[in-house]
Amino acid sequence: MSLTVVGSIAFDAVRTPSGSRERMLGGAATHFALAASFFDEVRVVGPVGDDFGEDDMAVLATRGTVTDDVERIAGGRTFFWSGEYAQNLNARETLVTELNVFEHFQPKLSAASRDCDVLFLANIQPELQLRVREQCAGARFVAMDSMDLWINIAHDALMATIRTVDCLILNDEELEMLTGAATTPSAAQQILGWGLKAVVAKQGKYGATLFTPDDAFALPAYPLEHVVDPTGAGDSFAGGFVGYVAAAGDGEISREVLARAMAYGIAISSYNVEEFGTERVARLTADEVAARVDDLHRMTAFTPAPVALRG
Amino acid sequence: MSLTVVGSIAFDAVRTPSGSRERMLGGAATHFALAASFFDEVRVVGPVGDDFGEDDMAVLATRGTVTDDVERIAGGRTFFWSGEYAQNLNARETLVTELNVFEHFQPKLSAASRDCDVLFLANIQPELQLRVREQCAGARFVAMDSMDLWINIAHDALMATIRTVDCLILNDEELEMLTGAATTPSAAQQILGWGLKAVVAKQGKYGATLFTPDDAFALPAYPLEHVVDPTGAGDSFAGGFVGYVAAAGDGEISREVLARAMAYGIAISSYNVEEFGTERVARLTADEVAARVDDLHRMTAFTPAPVALRG
Repeated sequence: MSLTVVGSIAFDAVRTPSGSRERMLGGAATHFALAASFFDEVRVVGPVGDDFGEDDMAVLATRGTVTDDVERIAGGRTFFWSGEYAQNLNARETLVTELNVFEHFQPKLSAASRDCDVLFLANIQPELQLRVREQCAGARFVAMDSMDLWINIAHDALMATIRTVDCLILNDEELEMLTGAATTPSAAQQILGWGLKAVVAKQGKYGATLFTPDDAFALPAYPLEHVVDPTGAGDSFAGGFVGYVAAAGDGEISREVLARAMAYGIAISSYNVEEFGTERVARLTADEVAARVDDLHRMTAFTPAPVALRG
Repeated sequence: MSLTVVGSIAFDAVRTPSGSRERMLGGAATHFALAASFFDEVRVVGPVGDDFGEDDMAVLATRGTVTDDVERIAGGRTFFWSGEYAQNLNARETLVTELNVFEHFQPKLSAASRDCDVLFLANIQPELQLRVREQCAGARFVAMDSMDLWINIAHDALMATIRTVDCLILNDEELEMLTGAATTPSAAQQILGWGLKAVVAKQGKYGATLFTPDDAFALPAYPLEHVVDPTGAGDSFAGGFVGYVAAAGDGEISREVLARAMAYGIAISSYNVEEFGTERVARLTADEVAARVDDLHRMTAFTPAPVALRG
């Protein structure tokens, strides 16, 4: 199996109630790759600038991620994002976004990246996502993320791109914004009507819900007493989720596979927010991932034993 | 077993995106009793006015709820609340609160109500909750709700009352407000440190999380495409949760019992919001409750099958 991700590789500056970082490795493709690399060989497609160091590239290559298609733009600077989180960590304000090398990025995929079985289009301009999606015509499972910005300023391109993928992974409020629906389940049903196989609503500190044409599956987030930095949580979730699907083989993507994929996504994203940026997931072990999935199972499992209900 | 609830019995006026009602039966004790009555004989303690009709009393008495301690105040008017919900239904504005007969209410419990095994102190002034709690000294499980108003204007009385109960059931944001903690798990741990056996964080449309000294248990809400009126959802949840605990017998209140109680709470509250006020739960059947618990089980169950994680 092989898994390709296209998206931002970035430097982030963040301020949270726990502290701050002036420049840390980040970006959607980075967080996705670090999580997905537990399951499959990941190929990352995206541009970086002259300022992207060998040590940054080494983190990106954790657990064998292939960086052949990370394009270094001579004279360019790496994408930069800066943000500040509110006290309760569920709201954040973007302070600075410098597209830099992303401004004129034209994704060029090697044959190996194009031949992927599974493709993830991380949050970038929907036109770029569509161009990559078209190059990976043989992928058996294609998932994508997006954000409120594109819903507002590139609605038609986003709609066209969504209709070419199998699975949309989006924040619950963005699903409602995209469709105008009053509830997330109603938004998801509308999107499934466009021909998608699955829609995943990311619910921040509350967990995530998966909608398929016939059913739903939901898990709460792993309860953490201390959250240091939520940056990249959604992309770590997507990495665990899509990575598990990629590793589950080339058979039918069953409900059981998708449910387990949800658990791996939630487990890895819960580690992501325990420290700044990629710090925690870069040194995460397979045993720790498995232990948290087991915890999550114990914390959600119940048996609906018969009780004599009064009529 | 026997279960007593003290709290408001009210008329509500609400406006939601789905429509409005000028006067419907409501109140925390009412919603709690309708839900809990699936599990045990419920005794309701609270005042009503001359305007409380026989038809209202009949709804309150659904499934055998005992209304002997519903005190009719001659010349008084029933508690009245009016509110309006935002488009996404997760925020609401209180327009009118008329305490009416509640203003000078002194709870008088019959011997049967005092002798309860399980007691629920619905959201009223913490001083009244404490007075009732002291009258029910033999109860083996006492749970309570509260609200932001009392955290702000009756903080000390609320703290004193909380320390006398086994279980606090509160909105997640109110748990954080009460303790000053940045996360709900941290708030819950702080409160458990006061000697409680359990803390339940109600998370609105996202579900609920139970914290015990040793562990946590969480369930998402049942995914509903259409929500008509969230009024009473929290009290319906509490009714299902506490009702199940009451029905589970007089043995140890195990983790397994509490987990199932969470599922029944979420199942019944999901029906509550499908129609206005008590309309849906008043005609709910035991089979429907059991079916939704089964649905919730199917929608959250996964097996953490071994996957060969890359190291």
